Order: sequence, then C-alpha cells, then structure tokens
Amino acid sequence: DAPLSLIAGPCVLESRAHALEMAAALKEITSELGIGCVYKTSFDKANRTSRTGARGLGLDHALPIFAEIREAFGLPVLTDVHESAQCAEVAKAVDVLQIPAFLCRQTDLLVAAAETGAAVNVKKGQFLAPWDMTNVVEKITSAGNDRVMVTERGVSFGYNTLVSDMRALPVLAKTGAPVIFDATHSVQQPGGQGTASGGDRRFVPVLARAAVSLGIAGVFIETHDSPETAPSDGPNMVPLKDLPALLKDLMAFDQLAKSRPLDASTFG
Amino acid sequence: DAPLSLIAGPCVLESRAHALEMAAALKEITSELGIGCVYKTSFDKANRTSRTGARGLGLDHALPIFAEIREAFGLPVLTDVHESAQCAEVAKAVDVLQIPAFLCRQTDLLVAAAETGAAVNVKKGQFLAPWDMTNVVEKITSAGNDRVMVTERGVSFGYNTLVSDMRALPVLAKTGAPVIFDATHSVQQPGGQGTASGGDRRFVPVLARAAVSLGIAGVFIETHDSPETAPSDGPNMVPLKDLPALLKDLMAFDQLAKSRPLDASTFG
Amino acid sequence: DAPLSLIAGPCVLESRAHALEMAAALKEITSELGIGCVYKTSFDKANRTSRTGARGLGLDHALPIFAEIREAFGLPVLTDVHESAQCAEVAKAVDVLQIPAFLCRQTDLLVAAAETGAAVNVKKGQFLAPWDMTNVVEKITSAGNDRVMVTERGVSFGYNTLVSDMRALPVLAKTGAPVIFDATHSVQQPGGQGTASGGDRRFVPVLARAAVSLGIAGVFIETHDSPETAPSDGPNMVPLKDLPALLKDLMAFDQLAKSRPLDASTFG
Amino acid sequence: DAPLSLIAGPCVLESRAHALEMAAALKEITSELGIGCVYKTSFDKANRTSRTGARGLGLDHALPIFAEIREAFGLPVLTDVHESAQCAEVAKAVDVLQIPAFLCRQTDLLVAAAETGAAVNVKKGQFLAPWDMTNVVEKITSAGNDRVMVTERGVSFGYNTLVSDMRALPVLAKTGAPVIFDATHSVQQPGGQGTASGGDRRFVPVLARAAVSLGIAGVFIETHDSPETAPSDGPNMVPLKDLPALLKDLMAFDQLAKSRPLDASTFG
Repeated sequence: DAPLSLIAGPCVLESRAHALEMAAALKEITSELGIGCVYKTSFDKANRTSRTGARGLGLDHALPIFAEIREAFGLPVLTDVHESAQCAEVAKAVDVLQIPAFLCRQTDLLVAAAETGAAVNVKKGQFLAPWDMTNVVEKITSAGNDRVMVTERGVSFGYNTLVSDMRALPVLAKTGAPVIFDATHSVQQPGGQGTASGGDRRFVPVLARAAVSLGIAGVFIETHDSPETAPSDGPNMVPLKDLPALLKDLMAFDQLAKSRPLDASTFG
Repeated sequence: DAPLSLIAGPCVLESRAHALEMAAALKEITSELGIGCVYKTSFDKANRTSRTGARGLGLDHALPIFAEIREAFGLPVLTDVHESAQCAEVAKAVDVLQIPAFLCRQTDLLVAAAETGAAVNVKKGQFLAPWDMTNVVEKITSAGNDRVMVTERGVSFGYNTLVSDMRALPVLAKTGAPVIFDATHSVQQPGGQGTASGGDRRFVPVLARAAVSLGIAGVFIETHDSPETAPSDGPNMVPLKDLPALLKDLMAFDQLAKSRPLDASTFG
Repeated sequence: DAPLSLIAGPCVLESRAHALEMAAALKEITSELGIGCVYKTSFDKANRTSRTGARGLGLDHALPIFAEIREAFGLPVLTDVHESAQCAEVAKAVDVLQIPAFLCRQTDLLVAAAETGAAVNVKKGQFLAPWDMTNVVEKITSAGNDRVMVTERGVSFGYNTLVSDMRALPVLAKTGAPVIFDATHSVQQPGGQGTASGGDRRFVPVLARAAVSLGIAGVFIETHDSPETAPSDGPNMVPLKDLPALLKDLMAFDQLAKSRPLDASTFG
Repeated sequence: DAPLSLIAGPCVLESRAHALEMAAALKEITSELGIGCVYKTSFDKANRTSRTGARGLGLDHALPIFAEIREAFGLPVLTDVHESAQCAEVAKAVDVLQIPAFLCRQTDLLVAAAETGAAVNVKKGQFLAPWDMTNVVEKITSAGNDRVMVTERGVSFGYNTLVSDMRALPVLAKTGAPVIFDATHSVQQPGGQGTASGGDRRFVPVLARAAVSLGIAGVFIETHDSPETAPSDGPNMVPLKDLPALLKDLMAFDQLAKSRPLDASTFG
C-alpha cells in the first residue's frame, strides 16, 4: 500500500496572498517530512450555516490562483463544486473535484464531475451509512471515471454533533476507492454556535491517529496560520504551527499500519 | 388558526395521463372533505439512492403538465428544484418551489428560489436541529420573500433510520413560518433496500396524527394508486384508496388542536 | 378502550407532610376532572447522576407513608424498586412496582417483582428498541403475572439528550401490555447539568398530547408544588398549578383518540 | 505509561472444565507474548435479552472455580456483580469487581463494590456521555477506593446498534482512572437477533487497533474456543485461535502509542 497522503489547506480561499503563503508553507512542511500533499481550499462556501457567513472569492477570482499554486509549488489542487454547471470549468484549473457531503447523492453533480475526467473526492453525507457509498461511487465509475476517492467526515449523532465510526473506514474500502479521513470536519459541531458551526480541534489528533492506524489512503486536515481570525471553520482547523508534529505522528502510525494490513491479518 | 392543509401527490411525475388521474382523484377527495390541497410531484428525482433509479419526466415535459393540472383542477402545484438555474423557469409553472432536505443549506438555491416570488417550502435536513432552521428561513426572507414554509421530515437516528422528534414542530413554529409535517418521508428507511430506500407506511397515520394534534399548518403525504408498482418511494407512500379515511382522521384531530392552541395554554 | 389514566406525583418522597399534601391535591384535581390517578413517588433515588444528589427517605420510613396515602385518599400507590430483595416488602405497601429504565433487563428484579403478584410497570430502557420490550414483558408474564404495563420514556439520541419516537407506542402495544407515556422524563437532558440531569418542561404538553392522541392507556407526569426547590428532576417536573389545564387538554385528545382507534382504521 | 494489559475470557462461566481450559490457554498465549492478563468470566448473565437465555453456573458454584484459576495459573480474575449484596462475598474470590454498563449509575452497587477494597471496573452505560463518568468514578473514590478503572463499550446509535466514539477515550482518561476499551461488546447489535444480541466480530480488530493507538491502559476481549456454540455473545467473541495474532498486532500499536503520548504532544 502507498504511504499516507495529505489533503490540506485553509477552509476557504481568502486572498491570493494568503493562499500563496499557505501553499508555500504546506509545500515546505510536507517536502521536509516526505508526505504527498494536495492543496485544498474552497472558492465558495455555498452552504454556510447563516446567510451572513463569508463565502470566499468566487469562481472567477479563484481559478487563476489555483493555476498559480499548481505552477509555483507543483502542488495538486482540490476544490469543491456545488452545481453541475461548474464542473467543466473548475476541472481545467484543479486536479481534484470534491463533492460536498450534503450533495453526495446529487446524481447530476456526481456525473458532471465524473465526466470532466478529473479525480473526484466524495465526502460521505452526515446522513449516510458507509455501505450506502457503494451506490455513490458507482454513479461516478459508471460515468467512465475510475479516479474516485471517498471521505469519511462524521455521521449525525443527535443534534449539533457528529461521531466518527471507525468501522466505516474498512466498509468504505470495500467500494474499491481510496479512503480519506477528514479529521477536522469530523470534530465540527454543526450549527453549534447559533449562526456558525462550532468544533473542538483538540480531538483532531485523536481521531486522525485512530483512523490512520487502520491503514487509510489519506488524511484531510484543514489548517490555518490564524484559526481564530479565519472566516470559517476556525474552531476545528489545526493551527499551521502544530501541523508538522501532527503529521509526523500520523506518518509513524501509517508506517506501522501499512506494515500490518488489517485485511491480510484478521479483518475481512 | 387556519385549518389543516394538505400537500399530496405521487412522489414522481410518471406520465401526463397518470398525473391528471391522480390530480383528479385528489381534487375530488379533498373537495368532498373540505380540506385545501396542493398537488405535489417531482419532475426529477435528482438524488436517488442509486444511479439506476428512475428519475421522472424531466423539466421540459413536466412544465406543461403542471400548467394543465392548475388549470384543469384549480389545484396549486408544488415541485422541488435542485439547482439555482432551474428556479425562475419552474416558478412560472408552479405555485410552490420546494427545497429538498439535502439541499436546505445551499444558499444560492434558497436565494434563487426566494427571488422568484413564489412560495418556498424548505424541507429540514436529516442532519439539522430544528433551531438551525432559523438561519435557513432567514436566507429566504432576507432575499425579500416572506412566503416560506418549513417541513419536518425526520432526523438521522443511527444508520438507515429516521426518527420524528415532535418537539421540532413548536421549535420550527418559532421561525414564524407555517409548519408542515411530512408523514411519508418520515417513515423512510434511507438506503435501507440496498439500491433504494425502504419505508414502513403503517406508521404514516401514527406520526401524522401525533404531529397534527400539535396544531400544525399542513401535512405532506405522498400517495399513489398503486404504490407497489411506483418507480420510487413505494414502501412509504399511502395507497390512494386509504387517503380519505386518513384525512378524515387528521381533520378531526386538527379541529381539536386548533381549538386548544398549545401556545396559548401550556407551551411557550 | 378505557379512558386515559394518570400516574403522577413528586419525583421523590421528601417528607410525610409533603407527600400527604401532594396526594391530597392530586386526589382533588383528578376527582374533579374524573380521571383515574395512581400516586407515584420514589423512596430512594438509587441512580442519581452524582453521589451527592439527595436520595429520599428510604424504604423503612416510606412504607407507612405509602400505606397512609392509600387509606387516607383511596389512591393506588406506585413506587420503584432497585434490587430484587426489596420487592416482596415493598409490594405489601403499594399497588404497582415500577422497574426503572436502566434496570429493565435485570431478570432477577423483573421476576422478583412479578412474583409479588402486584402490578408491575416497566420503563423502557433508553438503550432499547421498542420491539425489545417483548422479551422484557415475557420475563414477567412467564413468572405468572399478567398485570404488567410498559412505559416509554425516551431513547438515547446523541449525548445528554433523549428523543421520543411516537412509533414506539403502537409497537409497545403489540406486547399486549397497557402502554404509558412518561411525559416528564422524556424531556430530561440526562447528566446535562454536570452533576444533575437537566430538562425542559415546556415540551411536556407537546409530547404528552402527541402520545395521547395515539390512544394510550395512561400518562406519567411528575409534578411538584415548587419544582424549583425540588431535590431532583426540578427542570422537567410540571408545576402542580399547571396540572389541571394540562390534564383537561389531554383528556380531550384522549376522548377523540379512543373514539377513533388507530388499529381499527388505518394502522396494523 | 505501562504497556497494554488484557482482560479476556469467555463471556460466561460454562463449567469448571471449560474455565480451566480457557484459563490455561490464555495463560500460555499471554505469557508467550509478554502481556499481562486478567481472566474474565461471568457467574451469572443477569440481564439476558430474553428470559430463556442461559445464565451461567451461579455464584456458589463459581467462587471455588475462580479461586482455582487464580491459584493454578496465577491469573487475576474479574467478574461482574449485579446487586450490592453480592459484592463482599464475590470480592473474596476475585481481584476485580466489574459493574455492568446498565448498572453504572446504581449508587449502592458502586459503593458496595468500592467498600470491598477490590479493584472496580465500571463499564460506561450505553446511555452515558463520556464526561458523565466523572460522577461515576467519584461515587467509588469517595467511598475510599482509588482502584477504579473505566471501560468504553459503545454508545447507543439508533436502535439495536452501538457506535464507538474514540473521543471518549481521552475524555475518560481525564477522570484519572485507567481506561479500558471493550472491543467485543462494542461490536454488539443489542437485541438484534430477536431473543438474543447479535454482533459482528470482523470489526473487533478494527476498533481495538483504533483504540489502542490512542494509548489506553487495557483492552477487553471476550474469547472462546468455539464461539458458534457458546451460550452467549457468540457473534462478537473472538475465536481463541485468532487471539495471538490480534494481540501481537495490538501490542505493536500500543508500543508506538506509548512512545508518542497524545497528551504530551498535541492533545490536551
């Protein structure tokens, strides 16, 4: 099995300057540690808790910045799409199209993303069982695109709370798609701050380590140089300065996990 | 308080002939009982569990049929929209635009629906707390449209199961929007049949009666003359032949509930 | 079907004087309204959230007070038992032995309660599906006691929260036992105040009315003349002064529900 | 931090011969691997799903067998108690008294167990938040006994299902008590087979590894030489022949986890 990859970046594209700074820092951190990195950022937060939440730079301003990040740092770029009409244009500027969790069953969006030929990362809906993702993956592969990844990001557990079911990871692996664990959205408290989502970043290393110990393909971590002032997802993003130690930790567990694959020993 | 209204119809628009037959039957049933009726049907099932699930006639074939139903029977028509670009066109042919539960936080879709001036019915996401709908309603009213309704249709409860929290109804009422209870989707077992959602229609009268006893504005009931052969939602739709007795039952409880409003007596 | 009965009283037996006062008040209220009443109170709160929570007068002091309530007011008395050795003695002084929700699968306790010949009211555990109560009821009936009731009091829904699934009531009815809805524990927030359980009594009339509209045998309501100063369950108990209006409301819905039994019309 | 310990054995004490055989096998396996082992077995299954479920040898027959296991193999013995009156007698024959999950808030039982001076292992109730265990631990320590352990065994997640929240482990650690992860009950499907609990032992290595990677004190694994014919918990017990490979795997992750304590790096 290939070693652990990282999908990381700030939740939302705030400005060209901030994006380039973050990308440079991530490039440096991950090169030094020897872990592959995909740069993640959103050009539009299309489903904010409240109407007044900041939404990002928008598609037109974002695409040239995405291109610049790819060129300047050699980092693949991932961003999320929200309506099927966006897919073709966005796919020209990025490497991975991401389907947001709430939208993971919108057939047209999945097919439009698949038809671009770009890799597609589908977040599992907070309302879905892991085995339900088989049908979701099939919506993409049957459109002729096998480059699909699935991401666990927590499941509804009462109101304003998520829980991460680690059993979901081997179940998702049965789809044949690489499995990513989203460690920062999994600690969200959706809607938990009235007009914004809360979160508890103290649990990011806990859940990430547990997930990585099972031998997954990648980990998704939103990070920011100043989470307290970030326009969205501040309470759950990992401060950039804490990222290297966290990654080092996860890489150690990944190495052990990949040397002891669960399928070949006791599971399956 | 106004008496209970009904939103009813087959899950999906199957054909012009079937739609007209169902609309005629619903018109006759509801006229006789003296209950207001909005005809509901989907031109596209955009988020089927599986890619191979039937999706409906599509927008272009559906709009003239919607117009015909309005004219022929004087029934207002409700249908759901899935992407913001659809709203303006659909709004010309129907009275109520419905926002599907998975899409209830997509700001662009909510605003586009609001800006048509049509009434908007938002289904509460299976992943949302009832108090989170305050922000959702505000996304619509702040776009200048006060004709918004909110619909409870169950909340995630473990895998492949929903539960209806009756406390949600008075909480939703605090948004100021009329509250609808969706009695047939609330008994769904999402994804519970592998490549389709299951359901248990025996609980429709149970949940509907409990909800109506609290004094709500309307009840949403998908119905079909032959649920067993319906292309979607068969296990939870109410057979058309059972609808009159069910409505009569609900109207009796509604009358009692409206004569004893919860707010004015013990709640609030 | 028999009209709705009431099980009511203060959560815990605080003193002889308080118990007699409460019993007198309940006797008067329920006589005037014409609703049957069982007086409920606990001699021991055996599973308080925290060690320092008040526990009640204890068995020895309680039994003569129970006897006095029965004699003075002609009210049947219900109290809960916690270990099998208590059953025989308690059964001499009360009419109904109640099995607490946490203990609803303790076979010895169920059998010991059953063998007293007293009526037994089993609360459904917060961790149980309604259909699991079939086995619980059978533990009692197979010990030769058919006088068993089952009580719904909410099911775990995330942390520190319960939800009331109204589908549970007809499912419980299939056991053949009379079904009670516990309207005050259903609005508890277990452990939600750190060293005590919280609750929100505003939802008591909501859930009680929804449940009663389904045609149940009885409703369980903890009540107190001064909930704010009560040693336990204050946040969810109904103030005594609000009880008559609440009961009147529930009796109106019960009458309608019993005139339109769900089984005979659309359910079952 | 001390290396991982094991609590293991068959769910229920079936016979003297079977117990001695299992204890001998566990002694041999764990000595060879160099992992500490506590022998677990129940003398009474006091809360079977159904009345007809087998209950075990009973207290009188079990105590001499417990004593024999301690002497013959030098293994400490753990068993569960169900009523306070049992604690003193059982404590004479075993090293650890275990409080079953359903009973984890029964103050008298906790105090009676504490007062024996034996170590006490409390299973967290399926209905409890992890932070609620602070009060439970305090019930024991305030009775003068600091030898208390807490065990995570899953939390209610819809009907007939549990989920293991890995965030619970560091939260439980804040109580100061050693934290155990019960890997076999966590994969139970309570009541899921009608008159018995189901389970899926394929997830035992998954959840155990995730938990151990967080640096816990011990893992609890029910095991049996022939789970298919075991009188209880067969679907979730680990076959004895698979135990050595599983333990070896967990010990590798434990060693890494203990060399990289979460508290000292990124958590807390």
